[in-house]
Parts: sequence; C-alpha cells; structure tokens
Amino acid sequence: MYNNVTHRLCTHRLQSSILERVTVDIRIRFGRTVRRLREEQEINQEEAADRCGLHRTYYSGIERGVRNVSLVNIEKVAKGLKTSLPDLFRRV
Amino acid sequence: MYNNVTHRLCTHRLQSSILERVTVDIRIRFGRTVRRLREEQEINQEEAADRCGLHRTYYSGIERGVRNVSLVNIEKVAKGLKTSLPDLFRRV
Repeated sequence: MYNNVTHRLCTHRLQSSILERVTVDIRIRFGRTVRRLREEQEINQEEAADRCGLHRTYYSGIERGVRNVSLVNIEKVAKGLKTSLPDLFRRV
Repeated sequence: MYNNVTHRLCTHRLQSSILERVTVDIRIRFGRTVRRLREEQEINQEEAADRCGLHRTYYSGIERGVRNVSLVNIEKVAKGLKTSLPDLFRRV
C-alpha cells in the first residue's frame, strides 16, 4: 500500500520531467501545445477555430487531447496559429 | 492553348521551387519525406513498416501520399525511422 503511493508519487514526478515525451500520449501533448499557442495570442477557442478553419467543437477536442489530428488538420492548426510545422512539433 | 501550355510549364517550375511548401498537399510532402528517410537508412518498405509497427500496405500508402496520417501514427513513423517529430517536419 505504502509502496503503491510512493510509486504513484514517483510516476507523477517523472511525468513532469524530461520523460514526459515518452509517457504522455501524443494527443495530449499536441493539445497542450495548441492551447499554449492560442493563449499566447490571447484569443479564445472560437476565434482560434475560425482562424484554423475548423469547427469549434472539433478544435476544442484538439486542445483537450481527445482528437487524433491528421496531417491536413495539423497543417490548418499551424497556419491558423501562425506557426510552422517544425516549430509546432518542437513544442509538443 | 499556347498560354495553357506555358501556364502548365510555369506551374511545374514553381512546384519545384520554394513555393512547393504552399502548393503541394501536405500528404504528398509528408510521404516524400518518409520515403527519403527510409532510403537513407537503406531499408525496404516492409522493413520500415515493421520498425514503425504499421501494416506494410498502410505504410506504402503513407509514402505514396494517399494517407492522411494522424498523430499516433506520425509518432510511430518518427520512432520507427529514428527521427524526432521536429526533425521529421523540418524536412516536410
């Protein structure tokens, strides 16, 4: 029981560290990056969705990490949030 | 008619230039990049598909630019071909 708690604490710390890239699902990491990019531009989800040419509920799903976004829409997101694909993935 | 031919020739030249990034579909550009990466490693499509954990007909479709690959499989391709996501997209 104690070991379990310790294990969970350690796991939590690891996820906040460099190992995050390995352990956290790509959809979650991509969504967080998109949210950060949008917040830096001080626009809301609806405005961002408009700029990307995506439906706002779909866009919201991207930020929440529930969408397995594919190339064509990834490109729309990059253009809409005024970044390049390499820069976008550098932050994922 | 003559103008049409000229137009087509010009379009072809533009596609080979810096404007390629704008004019050519992201699926085509992604596929070409994946093919180049594989060829640099001197492996065939079947071996590459194995390393990526993808079915070989699906992998073949990626290289031909007919697949709108999504995040989870993009990550598999990057890992399988031993590159990072930013490096992969720097070449797209």
